[in-house]
Amino acid sequence: MRGNIRNILFSVLISCIFCLSGYGQIERTEPPFWWAGMEKSEIQILFYGKNIADYQVSLQEQIPVTGIIKTENPNYIFISVETEGLEPGMLHFDFQKKNGKKFIREYKLKTRREESSKREGFSSSDVIYLIMPDRFANGNPDNDSVEGLTDKLNRKENGGRHGGDIQGIIDHLDYLDDLGVTAIWNTPLLEDNDPRYSYHTYAQSDVYRIDPRFGSNEDYKKLASEMHDRDMKLIMDYVTNHWGREHWMIKDLPTYDWINQFPGYEQSNYRMETQFDPHASHRDHKYCVDGWFVRTMPDLNQKNPLVLNYLIQNAIWWIEYANLDGFRVDTYSYNDKEGIAEWTETIMEEYPNFNIVGEVWLHDQAQIAYWQKDSKIGAIQNYNTHLPSVMDFTLHNAIETIFEEEGGWGSGMDKVYGNFVNDFLYPDINNLLIFMENHDTRRFNEIYDQSLENYKLALTLIVTTRGIPQLYYGSEIGMRGKKEEGDGDIRRDFPGGWEADEQNAFLASERTTEQQEFHGFTKKLLNWRKSAEVVHNGELTQYIPYDNVYVYFRTLEDQKLMVILNNNEEAQVLTPQRFAEDIGAAGSGTDILTGEQINLTEEFEINGKTPMIIELNK
Amino acid sequence: MRGNIRNILFSVLISCIFCLSGYGQIERTEPPFWWAGMEKSEIQILFYGKNIADYQVSLQEQIPVTGIIKTENPNYIFISVETEGLEPGMLHFDFQKKNGKKFIREYKLKTRREESSKREGFSSSDVIYLIMPDRFANGNPDNDSVEGLTDKLNRKENGGRHGGDIQGIIDHLDYLDDLGVTAIWNTPLLEDNDPRYSYHTYAQSDVYRIDPRFGSNEDYKKLASEMHDRDMKLIMDYVTNHWGREHWMIKDLPTYDWINQFPGYEQSNYRMETQFDPHASHRDHKYCVDGWFVRTMPDLNQKNPLVLNYLIQNAIWWIEYANLDGFRVDTYSYNDKEGIAEWTETIMEEYPNFNIVGEVWLHDQAQIAYWQKDSKIGAIQNYNTHLPSVMDFTLHNAIETIFEEEGGWGSGMDKVYGNFVNDFLYPDINNLLIFMENHDTRRFNEIYDQSLENYKLALTLIVTTRGIPQLYYGSEIGMRGKKEEGDGDIRRDFPGGWEADEQNAFLASERTTEQQEFHGFTKKLLNWRKSAEVVHNGELTQYIPYDNVYVYFRTLEDQKLMVILNNNEEAQVLTPQRFAEDIGAAGSGTDILTGEQINLTEEFEINGKTPMIIELNK
Repeated sequence: MRGNIRNILFSVLISCIFCLSGYGQIERTEPPFWWAGMEKSEIQILFYGKNIADYQVSLQEQIPVTGIIKTENPNYIFISVETEGLEPGMLHFDFQKKNGKKFIREYKLKTRREESSKREGFSSSDVIYLIMPDRFANGNPDNDSVEGLTDKLNRKENGGRHGGDIQGIIDHLDYLDDLGVTAIWNTPLLEDNDPRYSYHTYAQSDVYRIDPRFGSNEDYKKLASEMHDRDMKLIMDYVTNHWGREHWMIKDLPTYDWINQFPGYEQSNYRMETQFDPHASHRDHKYCVDGWFVRTMPDLNQKNPLVLNYLIQNAIWWIEYANLDGFRVDTYSYNDKEGIAEWTETIMEEYPNFNIVGEVWLHDQAQIAYWQKDSKIGAIQNYNTHLPSVMDFTLHNAIETIFEEEGGWGSGMDKVYGNFVNDFLYPDINNLLIFMENHDTRRFNEIYDQSLENYKLALTLIVTTRGIPQLYYGSEIGMRGKKEEGDGDIRRDFPGGWEADEQNAFLASERTTEQQEFHGFTKKLLNWRKSAEVVHNGELTQYIPYDNVYVYFRTLEDQKLMVILNNNEEAQVLTPQRFAEDIGAAGSGTDILTGEQINLTEEFEINGKTPMIIELNK
Repeated sequence: MRGNIRNILFSVLISCIFCLSGYGQIERTEPPFWWAGMEKSEIQILFYGKNIADYQVSLQEQIPVTGIIKTENPNYIFISVETEGLEPGMLHFDFQKKNGKKFIREYKLKTRREESSKREGFSSSDVIYLIMPDRFANGNPDNDSVEGLTDKLNRKENGGRHGGDIQGIIDHLDYLDDLGVTAIWNTPLLEDNDPRYSYHTYAQSDVYRIDPRFGSNEDYKKLASEMHDRDMKLIMDYVTNHWGREHWMIKDLPTYDWINQFPGYEQSNYRMETQFDPHASHRDHKYCVDGWFVRTMPDLNQKNPLVLNYLIQNAIWWIEYANLDGFRVDTYSYNDKEGIAEWTETIMEEYPNFNIVGEVWLHDQAQIAYWQKDSKIGAIQNYNTHLPSVMDFTLHNAIETIFEEEGGWGSGMDKVYGNFVNDFLYPDINNLLIFMENHDTRRFNEIYDQSLENYKLALTLIVTTRGIPQLYYGSEIGMRGKKEEGDGDIRRDFPGGWEADEQNAFLASERTTEQQEFHGFTKKLLNWRKSAEVVHNGELTQYIPYDNVYVYFRTLEDQKLMVILNNNEEAQVLTPQRFAEDIGAAGSGTDILTGEQINLTEEFEINGKTPMIIELNK
C-alpha cells in the first residue's frame, strides 16, 4: 500500500520535471539521472527527441562538457559531462536552435547510498535460487496484461505469459529464506515488448524500465530492499549482447552500426570457439560475434563506443538504483571480446567487491577458464575479461548423466572427479557457479524421473564442493519439465504461485509426501550450509573414486568435512586408512544428514545411493 | 659381412681392455665410455663388481674427482669426474684395498662426431613410420633365439617373439624411402630378458645393450648410418619410467630406493591427472607416479639423483653413440615430474636442436599441452618439462570415430575442427605428433573395415594439417589387427618380412590390388609432402564444417593450399565465396591428388568420401 503511494508521488515528480524542462522536445533522457561521487564520473547523457540534433546544447554550470556527439540520426544527441567533485544537485542544459527556439533541461545528480561502492557481491557463502519470474508466483494479478505491451496473459500456452511478477517473488521471500536460499538470480525483468515469448524477457525493448507486467522500477527496488532485510542478495540478469527488435532505439537507430548488420539479419553460427581458435577464419568469427542470436534479437555492436558506454552506464545505473548484489550476464561469450571486457572492468572498478557471473556455455574447462578474470588461459592471447565468475558447465554436463552410470574410468562418480582435476586452469575456483540445471537445460528431476536418491546425491555435491551453488526454482519440490516439449515446459509454474492453483506447494501443509521429502532435504542442507564456512572457503581434497563411490574432504583451519557419495544401488564398505592424510587423528565424526556418529578408525558401510557429510571431530 | 668382422674386432678390443684393467673385480662399467667435449662434462661412472666398494678409488690423471658415492650395496661405486677441457684419450682409475690388493681401470674419452651437438631432430617436415621391430622383418634368422635370453622364437604365438630385427629394418629402408617416409620410430630394441612378451621390449634388462635377438649395438649404429645416407632420421624409443624385473641392477639394487617400493610392488593407478590436480590426495599422486606400470616393470625412482643421472647419461650415450635424431619417451607423464623435466632439459641442453616426443596419453588438450616445453598451462603450476613435442591424442581419438559419423555439432568432421580450436593452448603446434593409430591403439584399418576411402581421408588430414605425421607400419597396405584379441594382434607381422611368407607385400609385384591402392595413395601423398613446405610450416586457417565437409587452408608466403575433406557418402557442392579471404585472387588451383584443374570462381563439386588438396595458382 505504501508502495503505491510512493509510486504516485514519483510519477508526479517526474511529470513535474518534464513540464519544467522542455517536454515535447525531448522524449527520453538516458540515464534518467546519475549520482554524485561515482567512479564513473564522466557521464554520457543521451537526449532523444524529434530533430533534437538541430539544437546547440550548453551547460549552465561551470563544469566541463567533454563531448557532444551527433549521429546520422537527428533524433539523438549524446552529451558527455565530467561530474567529478560535484555535489548532489541539479544540472541545467540549455538547448537552443538557430532560429532562437530554446528550452532548458534539468538533470539530477543524486546522493549515493552510503558505502555503495563497497557493496559485497554474492560469493561461495551463498546459495543462489534461480527464478523465472513469469512462472514463479503471480503477486499482482492486475498487471498480468498491460496496455501498450502486446503479449497478453495466456497461462494455457507453454510459451505464453503466465502472470508471475516481482510481487510474487516478494510474497515468497520468507519461503525462500526458510528454505535456506541466500540469493536470487531471476531471469530478466526489463521491458520486453515482443509479441510472443516475451515472458522470458531476453528481447528487451526498454532497458531503463521494469516491464509493467512484472511491476515497476520501484517494485524492483523494493524486492532488493526486502531481500536485504533478510540478508539475501539480488542478482540481476543482464543482457549486453542483444536487445529485442521492439526496442525503441532499434526502431529508430542512432547509427547504422548501433547493431551488427550484414546488412540486416544474419544468424550467429554460435561457434564461440572462433573467439579463441588461432586458426579461425575472419568470416566464421564475424558470424559468431556479429550474427544475431535469433531474428528477434538484433545484435548490439559493442565495438561502437556509444553502444558500449550506453550498456556500461545502464548496468551501473541499475546497481546503484536498485541496490544490486550481482549480475548474471547472458550469452557473455557471444559479445565483442574487447567490448565486453571493458564493460565488465568498468563495472568492477565502480564496485570492486561486486560479483558478476557470465554465461559461458562451453564444454571444456580451458575454454571456460579463458573467460574468468585474470585467466592464465586468456593471457595466452593477452585477453582478460575481468569477469569474476563463470559457470561450471562441465560439472553440469556430468551431473546430467552420472547418476545413471556405473562406476569406472570416466563414468559415474569418476566423471565428477575428472571435472575437478582441471581446477588449476581456473584463476578462482570459489567463484564458479555450480548447478544441476538452469532455465535453459533439461530439468534434473525429469532426467532422473524424480528420483529423490539422485536428487540427494546431486544436491549434496553441489552444496559441499567448491564454488557457488545455484538451484533452480521448483526442484526443491521435485518439479519436472521436458526440454523436448519446448523451453516453456522446463519453466512450469510453481504450484501455489497463482491464487486459483489447486495446490500451494509453498506451504508444507499442502505439499505431497514426496514433495515434502525433496523440500525437507533441501532445507536441511541449505540451512546447514549457511554457517558451514568450511564449504564456503575450505580447501578441497579429492580421492580417485572406486566402485562408483566418490570421497572428498573440505578443510578450513581446524574444521574438516568428509563427504561420501555412494552412487551404487548397493551399500559399500569404506576403509578409512585410504584417507588417513585427511582424517588425521580424528577418530570419529558426525554425519550431519543423519546425526549418526561414525567411527573412523575402522571400516564402515555407506548405504546404496546415499550421501554422507561427516563433520570430523576435532 | 663387413659388419660381422667389425663385431669380432670390437669384442677382441673389449676383452683386451677387460684383461688389462681388473676384469674379475669389475663386471660392469657404465657408461662404458664417454666423449671429450660434451656439454655434460661431469660424468658419473658406475663400477659394479663383487664388494667393489671395499676399494679406495683415485684417478691417475690430474683432473677433479668431484664425487665418490658408495651405497648400502657394496657391489656399487659411483665416481664423478669433471672432463671439461680434456682431449680424447684414456683415463686411469686406481682401485686399492686396505689389504693392498689393487688394480687399474681404464676409461676412454672418445672423439665426438663433428657437429654432433648441432644435430637436427625430426620435425614437421618429416613423416615418421612406427615399427615394432619384432614384427616387421626378420633380416637375420640366426638371432631369433639367443642363449642366455629366456624368451625364444615362437611365431605362432600372438605375444611371442617372431624374429624381426634390426637387419630386417635395414633391409627395407629402400622400401620406406620409396614410400616417402623420412623418419623411423621403432619400439625399443634394448635387451629385455622377460620370459614372456619380451618382443615389445618395454621391460628392459640392460640399457646399454641392444637385445641380441634384434642385433648388436653396432647393428643399431649401422641402421642410423644407413638411414642418414638416405636422408632419413632415426628416433629411439626411450623408457625412463621403469625397467624390467630382469634388469641386472634390479636384481642387485644399488639402493633400496633405486625403485619405488611400497615396500615391493604396488600397481600404478594410472591417474596421470594427479600430476596436476590441485585437489589430488598425496596418496593418489604417489600411487600414480610411484606405482608400477605392471608387475614385471619395477618403477624407477627419478627422485634419487643417482637414478636420474644414470638415465640422463644413458640417454645421451645412445644419441652420441648411435647418432640419433630423436627420442620418443614412453609413459612420459608417469615419471616423477621434476625428475623427467631435468632429464629432458639436460638432453636438450646437450643437443639444442634435437627433438623428443613424450607419450602423454591424455584426452584433454589443456592436460596434454601442460607437458610441452614452455607451456603456459604448465606455468600455472610453475612447471616446465622442456619436452619439445607431445602427442595429439585428442585428434587420434577423433580419428577413431569420425569417419563413421554424420556431420553436425561435435560429430564427424566437426570433431576434427573442434580439436584444432584449442591449438592456442599448445606452445608449439608444429611439434605435435599426429597419428591415426600406434602400437597401443586400435588399428585404423580394423576400425573402418579396411575402407580405402576412409584411409584416404584420414591420411590426407594427417599429412596436411599442422604437426608431424606418424604412420604405423602396415597401414600403407591396409593391414588390420584386433585390439580385443590382445596387443599382439595389432602388431601382426608385415607380410614378406619373413623368408617363408607366402606373400611379400614389400614388393609391388606381389601386393594385391587392394594393398596396391593403399600403398599407391600413401606413396603419392608422402612423396609430395617431402617438398611441400607449406604443410611443414604454413599457417593453418580452418572453416566451420557444414554437412560433414571440412575445409582448411595452409599458407606460407605466396604458397597456399586448400584442403577439402568430404566425409559424406554423397557428393557436395562448395561455394568458394565462403573462403574468399583465403582464396584471394587465385582464380583456380590444381588438385594434387588427381591433377585436375579446379575453377575457384564458381561452385564446384567434391565427390563423396573424397579428399582434395588444391594447390592454389599464384
